[in-house]
Amino acid sequence: MTLLEETCAALKPIDAAASENAQRLLDAKTKPRRSLGRLEELACRLAGIYRTSQPGLPQKAVVVMAADHGVSEEGVSAYPSEVTAQMLANFAVGGAAINVLARQAAVRVVVVDMGTKASTLPSGVLDHRLGAGTANFTREPAMIRDDAVRAIETGIRIADDLVSGGFTLIGLGDMGIGNTTAAAAITAALTGIAPARITGHGTGIDEDRRLHKTRVIERALARHRPDGGDALDVLAKVGGFEIAGLAGVALGAAARGIPVVVDGFITASAALAATRLGTNVTGYLIAAHRSVEPGHSAILETLRLWPLLDLQMRLGEGTGGVLAMHLIDAALLILRDMATFESAGVTDTGS
Amino acid sequence: MTLLEETCAALKPIDAAASENAQRLLDAKTKPRRSLGRLEELACRLAGIYRTSQPGLPQKAVVVMAADHGVSEEGVSAYPSEVTAQMLANFAVGGAAINVLARQAAVRVVVVDMGTKASTLPSGVLDHRLGAGTANFTREPAMIRDDAVRAIETGIRIADDLVSGGFTLIGLGDMGIGNTTAAAAITAALTGIAPARITGHGTGIDEDRRLHKTRVIERALARHRPDGGDALDVLAKVGGFEIAGLAGVALGAAARGIPVVVDGFITASAALAATRLGTNVTGYLIAAHRSVEPGHSAILETLRLWPLLDLQMRLGEGTGGVLAMHLIDAALLILRDMATFESAGVTDTGS
Repeated sequence: MTLLEETCAALKPIDAAASENAQRLLDAKTKPRRSLGRLEELACRLAGIYRTSQPGLPQKAVVVMAADHGVSEEGVSAYPSEVTAQMLANFAVGGAAINVLARQAAVRVVVVDMGTKASTLPSGVLDHRLGAGTANFTREPAMIRDDAVRAIETGIRIADDLVSGGFTLIGLGDMGIGNTTAAAAITAALTGIAPARITGHGTGIDEDRRLHKTRVIERALARHRPDGGDALDVLAKVGGFEIAGLAGVALGAAARGIPVVVDGFITASAALAATRLGTNVTGYLIAAHRSVEPGHSAILETLRLWPLLDLQMRLGEGTGGVLAMHLIDAALLILRDMATFESAGVTDTGS
Repeated sequence: MTLLEETCAALKPIDAAASENAQRLLDAKTKPRRSLGRLEELACRLAGIYRTSQPGLPQKAVVVMAADHGVSEEGVSAYPSEVTAQMLANFAVGGAAINVLARQAAVRVVVVDMGTKASTLPSGVLDHRLGAGTANFTREPAMIRDDAVRAIETGIRIADDLVSGGFTLIGLGDMGIGNTTAAAAITAALTGIAPARITGHGTGIDEDRRLHKTRVIERALARHRPDGGDALDVLAKVGGFEIAGLAGVALGAAARGIPVVVDGFITASAALAATRLGTNVTGYLIAAHRSVEPGHSAILETLRLWPLLDLQMRLGEGTGGVLAMHLIDAALLILRDMATFESAGVTDTGS
């Protein structure tokens, strides 16, 4: 078996009994039943993922994968490709939004170059480059199928290394000029939703550019006809190295029983692809927030995930995921530390 | 001048220039303009409140005021009055949800008995009791007007002491069996919205009890005819000791130029009253979350406040406020610590 096949074979449903036991524990705490709303649901899902009604606090990491996109030649972004490599350098010195937010939340940032045009890599960035960006998928497939597998397996190995190193919660982060175009193409191919309903303003293009971007995606899908029932085909033809890599991180984490925190549109498209590559993946996905990208909401609805935050963000990098990790810790602390009606001597009416 | 009058005289608008300067600083950071959405708006408002475009991180406190409510005799809650005092004891030993979440967010919890039926107070709880609960406002006014002033001035003094002690961010928290009934009556009186549209399920009553609770509020408003243009009259006739006290905390903090983090329905009704007692208060209010209580949404709309979280919570105690403080810190860290396009050598297209 290949690593991808082995990983998919290891995926199992989350533990429903542990979730139910966690809810019973929460119902004994000194508060009206279910009065912490989504925070209680989150605690129960985490219990199901960790297969225990009393999980400890997680050791947290965010994997930020970067790559360039040939399709950015088509003028689909407000920023030039060179910004991808510049941002890698910014991640490496700790100046980007993800660095700031990760320091606040005690989250390790793991930066991976999956295939940028950077001439040299800053120290600390993991080098897993599959090329200097994908091919322009309006003309040829973004990558060959073998490279899609290679990217996914890189992601699986990175998740595996993190879990072996003691990390028990993994966020997905992305950087790549042009990658909302790839994410929209992937989402359209995997869901069947029309590109016009999925394509957004990305880093800040105007309405004319957005219509142009939509047509670019429509043209690519018409040319390559990716098979919506075959996520590998979709990732190869209209994907990105970082998106395929992140799908692998999601698969690898889920296979090891670790929650995967999904950030914005790009990481959601990777998570969606992961749910099509393997079974039982969705239970491990925690939707951190709802970004302003319309394709992100389409994926959340498709996967029936409820985002914890809705702050009209559209930055990526894993920023929304790391912000939501405060709420994840909070949910677990409630489950672990709150007094019960009995221990605190508070009258319980069962309400 | 009375302390209340002095405090109201000290209220001034937040500093719009500092807000604008903060946005300029954010626009120079390595991210597409405004791509952190509401987090950027939050940073700018905090800059306006602190009157500097580069505020440091806040020292955080949450003031949890507790009181009992005579109206709970009418069967408006799923819990008996004795729970208020039991929860005071739980707060004192650190077992309640607010204690757990405040420890996580490094927030000092200040617990104040404004008038519960507790026979003895646990150590650490501040004693500012104005009585063993308010009167049942279906029969007589909840309190005399002088007691409403006393409660407000207690809140002002507590805020003042916290600010003098170095705290620079104050959350509002509440505990009091029956207090959603008082909050709904206050909200109806101050906004003119019908009680039926404001009255919710509180700690978990069923639909029949909710209709009964609505009628209790309608009866009280019909009997006392509180003057919606006079917040003191409203607080005295259908308020609660803790709600009046929290209105005072909001006024006191705003007068000292400190942000006030509003939690759920009860604290929002106090904040609403504060905006009617003084001018320029709304600029200092940060809506932490949207609870499931319909009256809470009515107040958020009235004050045009956008809540940071929407987790279907309905617990009170300041829990939503403390959860949102992670986002407040995050907003300030972004403003303080992120690299600029210039410092990081990232191409800025102005998008």
